[in-house]
Amino acid sequence: MQMHRFGFHPGRIHHIFISHLHGDHVFGLFGLLSSMGMSGRKAPVNLYGPPKMQEVMGQHLKFFGPLPFELRFQAPGDPDKVIFEDSKVTVTPIPLKHRVPAFGYLFREKEKELNVIKEKITSLGLGIADLVRIKRGEDHVCADGKVIPNSKLTLPPYRRRSYAYLSDTLYDPSLVRYVKDVDLLFHEATFSERDEKLAVQTMHSTSVQAAMLARDARAGKLLIGHFSTRYRDPELLEREARTIFPETDGVKDGNTYSIPLVRISRE
Amino acid sequence: MQMHRFGFHPGRIHHIFISHLHGDHVFGLFGLLSSMGMSGRKAPVNLYGPPKMQEVMGQHLKFFGPLPFELRFQAPGDPDKVIFEDSKVTVTPIPLKHRVPAFGYLFREKEKELNVIKEKITSLGLGIADLVRIKRGEDHVCADGKVIPNSKLTLPPYRRRSYAYLSDTLYDPSLVRYVKDVDLLFHEATFSERDEKLAVQTMHSTSVQAAMLARDARAGKLLIGHFSTRYRDPELLEREARTIFPETDGVKDGNTYSIPLVRISRE
Repeated sequence: MQMHRFGFHPGRIHHIFISHLHGDHVFGLFGLLSSMGMSGRKAPVNLYGPPKMQEVMGQHLKFFGPLPFELRFQAPGDPDKVIFEDSKVTVTPIPLKHRVPAFGYLFREKEKELNVIKEKITSLGLGIADLVRIKRGEDHVCADGKVIPNSKLTLPPYRRRSYAYLSDTLYDPSLVRYVKDVDLLFHEATFSERDEKLAVQTMHSTSVQAAMLARDARAGKLLIGHFSTRYRDPELLEREARTIFPETDGVKDGNTYSIPLVRISRE
Repeated sequence: MQMHRFGFHPGRIHHIFISHLHGDHVFGLFGLLSSMGMSGRKAPVNLYGPPKMQEVMGQHLKFFGPLPFELRFQAPGDPDKVIFEDSKVTVTPIPLKHRVPAFGYLFREKEKELNVIKEKITSLGLGIADLVRIKRGEDHVCADGKVIPNSKLTLPPYRRRSYAYLSDTLYDPSLVRYVKDVDLLFHEATFSERDEKLAVQTMHSTSVQAAMLARDARAGKLLIGHFSTRYRDPELLEREARTIFPETDGVKDGNTYSIPLVRISRE
């Protein structure tokens, strides 16, 4: 329903990453898959999530009937093992600490092909085969044996962008290693700093803890959400986090963020 | 989510009537019950629906953990057997014809106590015991043996109001007997009149069929909904139904209707 509300078409979804099997993180999936089926979808849907999820989906389909498309399931393996990869991005799971098995996910862009400087193509008379090699990062050897270094032929490469989603979890400083230098970090912040005890009891994090992780990981920007409904003013949590990590936004359904493409300086 | 959006508090819900086990009629239940639990609810929730629903809920709770309140389940029995009753209302199931076992529900107000005409209380010196008897409909016997008929002592009684919910179902003219003279009738109208074949195939109804049932049952007002998303202009279905039964409204989430209290004329 929220997708519909924000004009996002479910037909564009091919991969769904589930963190853990608590209702607020998974119940929407049943309606989403059902709607996809009703709309005549034929393309497979790939589901990633805790192992028990396959059993849950199995029972679900037993009761409510099969879907008109293939549902492929894969459980996360080792934290550094890629769970999904296509031509543009890799996804790796991140082990979280919650009351049930839970996973965060790191989405990292792959290196893009280098852009060859246009005027070099004509001045050096580069052919298709040359371009393929240069885009891959190789130097160019001219007919007379002269070597032109790749950095003189191409624009500086783009930095690989990354996004990590961490929810739900007890504050775990050791997660820094998985999200080091991430551009955009979503970290749950269920509780205010003043309810830290409750956060520990329920295995959730506070606003300040989310900010500490972002600071220690040198994240580009922190998004916090999953706020407890007990706070009448969710901006309180944003203000708390910003005392530790100023580049923090409290977010809600429908917010969108873009990570700008930036070329790495070769100086 | 829709309840939240329309300012309706789930804490006020004690009885939930489920028509059938298709996703668009039951998936919201899981999130609703989960939210009720998160908000600290202790009061039992009574669920009414097809027998298989108990098994579905059992599996669901096995996977996602128990709720902090009691969930009581009851399957509809014979169509004329009351499935729920309190001091104000009775609910009876109505057998529908759909691709899986499905039930409509008739909500009928009980007869209210009669209102005693105020001036009679003083002029006849009526005591508490007298009033109890008169409110129940009995005549009054004065100390001198004179009998005053109840109709001279009380205001005309209110007509018992009723509402029936019929979704999803193949058009079934024999349902008239269950909803005869109902004040407010919700009947699904998934399809336009021009897609009647599709309605039969999928065991749904058209706008015109819903209107025919309302007309034949002499309903007070007809509400139609559950429109297929294929119709860009859902008012088309409303217009079609009104050709047969003018007192028809096409409805959507959040609409509310009241049935006015009307005294029965004694003339």
